[in-house]
Amino acid sequence: MTDRHRYCVIMCGGIGSRFWPYSRTDRPKQFIDFFGTGRSLLQMSYDRILSVVPAENIIVVTNTVYAPLVREQLPDIDNSRILLEPARRNTAPCIAWAAHHIAALDPEASMIVTPSDHLITRDKEFETSILKGFEFVESHDALLTLGIRPTRPETGYGYIQIGREIGDGILKVKTFTEKPNRELAEVFLESGEFFWNSGIFLWKASAIKKALAEHAGDIYSIFEQGNGVYGTPAENDFIQANFPGCMGISIDFAVMEKASNVYVECVDFGWNDLGTWSALYDNSPRNRDGNVTQNCRVIAYNSHGNIFAVSGEKLIVAEGLENYIIADAGDVLLICPKSEEQRIKLMVNDAKEKYGDKYL
Amino acid sequence: MTDRHRYCVIMCGGIGSRFWPYSRTDRPKQFIDFFGTGRSLLQMSYDRILSVVPAENIIVVTNTVYAPLVREQLPDIDNSRILLEPARRNTAPCIAWAAHHIAALDPEASMIVTPSDHLITRDKEFETSILKGFEFVESHDALLTLGIRPTRPETGYGYIQIGREIGDGILKVKTFTEKPNRELAEVFLESGEFFWNSGIFLWKASAIKKALAEHAGDIYSIFEQGNGVYGTPAENDFIQANFPGCMGISIDFAVMEKASNVYVECVDFGWNDLGTWSALYDNSPRNRDGNVTQNCRVIAYNSHGNIFAVSGEKLIVAEGLENYIIADAGDVLLICPKSEEQRIKLMVNDAKEKYGDKYL
Repeated sequence: MTDRHRYCVIMCGGIGSRFWPYSRTDRPKQFIDFFGTGRSLLQMSYDRILSVVPAENIIVVTNTVYAPLVREQLPDIDNSRILLEPARRNTAPCIAWAAHHIAALDPEASMIVTPSDHLITRDKEFETSILKGFEFVESHDALLTLGIRPTRPETGYGYIQIGREIGDGILKVKTFTEKPNRELAEVFLESGEFFWNSGIFLWKASAIKKALAEHAGDIYSIFEQGNGVYGTPAENDFIQANFPGCMGISIDFAVMEKASNVYVECVDFGWNDLGTWSALYDNSPRNRDGNVTQNCRVIAYNSHGNIFAVSGEKLIVAEGLENYIIADAGDVLLICPKSEEQRIKLMVNDAKEKYGDKYL
Repeated sequence: MTDRHRYCVIMCGGIGSRFWPYSRTDRPKQFIDFFGTGRSLLQMSYDRILSVVPAENIIVVTNTVYAPLVREQLPDIDNSRILLEPARRNTAPCIAWAAHHIAALDPEASMIVTPSDHLITRDKEFETSILKGFEFVESHDALLTLGIRPTRPETGYGYIQIGREIGDGILKVKTFTEKPNRELAEVFLESGEFFWNSGIFLWKASAIKKALAEHAGDIYSIFEQGNGVYGTPAENDFIQANFPGCMGISIDFAVMEKASNVYVECVDFGWNDLGTWSALYDNSPRNRDGNVTQNCRVIAYNSHGNIFAVSGEKLIVAEGLENYIIADAGDVLLICPKSEEQRIKLMVNDAKEKYGDKYL
């Protein structure tokens, strides 16, 4: 039995450029059936949240251009619960809008905000953790973030330094840190005091509104002007006119790093942000040669440690490849060592410079 | 002014499996616009021969399955001049049929037999060489093969050892040799006595028929039974019934290595048999990184000595590849070091074993 005051905001407006060309601007990462299970990452996120929030309280925020994809993949979501951003402005404006929208529907609402493109492998643990988080934010004046106990000196994530424990597995946040270098990441891992920042948040709608008012006044005041339109047919026009005026900034930077009532719940539900090919490789089943074949047919010889990501029934025949990403998406093929994957964004830029939007 | 007794047989029934998957069974190498010039290798072969043989004397021999491709690519060739083999039987049966067919049309005919999938870069030299060859075989009881002076110790070709010169650039053949190993190829190159066997032949139709009768009696007698049908509507039925009964054997092995009246004309018209990816690489213009981009769009970083062969407007983005073949043909992608290209045939077999004919 889910609580009717509990809401969920699934953010799915990202373009997933780190997974180009497997992820394309017209079909980014969250809309892809990454593991060949028949469900996209967005659909898996939706399925997971159904056990903790009433279906009619699930709201999706995405970019206008992805509205058809969201409707296609989540046919159970009513159009009134798909919030369409007319511009990309990072997470703070997205969350500010969603909080105003939800608070208008239900002033007592509590809410979970979650990305749509992460991997979570233990659904039952997820459910337990989220229910605990809801109970905490409903009984405390708190902004809660979910922290993951690190298992390796990962340099691709932000970290949260924990303070005193104030409840079962819930601790005060001491600091948020940027992505560390390798040395620092090892210190973090050793110390036991640092957790990965998952980007999944829980709070009361009223609490995040209050925090935005205090720490992100520019954004907050834009959405305050809309009071009266949220949940009405006038909402869309208001957003079209005003959303693009928000600055693009993350909720971490705009609020979480500044607020004093920030807490972390330490969770362990098989999380990975799938932020990089290497992360995907690490989280995918490998064949005996250590190759990951993402959803495709591969015949490989003398090839190890590769990740093959190809759409459809295409056959890849590879000889003598070690630790490469091979990603094929119809009209683009990428072949790149895993160790060079941070350069993919530059490659996307070069492709854009040379051929315009054709291959993005 | 071309001589009306001169004929040409263009052989284009091969499946080009060494260039898989760029060359596929439904569109083998000879039908591909390999150099992005707008003309396939077959069309280039046809264009070249027009200057030495009357257009109406050009005959194409191919497999039945490729009839539509030949008609599409060579619309000027009348159906009566496309000989359709109902089975693959190597070059000796092909040539035996063509010789009987042509001899029936013109008992005085002389003919050039040429593959359709080689590269020849100097058309004017080609024309001069072929005219000289025709004159020789029309005035001598001779089987003439064209020999190419070797420029490197190539192990992929057969060699011809030359004997005494009996005319300007025309010599008696001492022996044909199989493909040599590297050491032997170097000896051949040093000696100046060995030429590459181009697989282009000239002779009178009557001379090759006589040689077949002497050295390949089994094949010869099959085609002798057809006397009276060649050039008539009954020819096709006769071939359907009898051609498959021929053994599959090359003209080199069946006749050239055995006959005593074999001569070689030493030619120099920029020939390459395009038998391997490396041969194609060696004969294609390279960009400043030493990459060959066969007809496709490539953005390459830290990549050298590769050959990218991709159909259509596909974009390839590559990082950190040295001396690879990257061949994409819609539903198959091959990535293989150039040094391992002799293994491609095995790969094709593996693909067949695993997925049937789908990717051949």
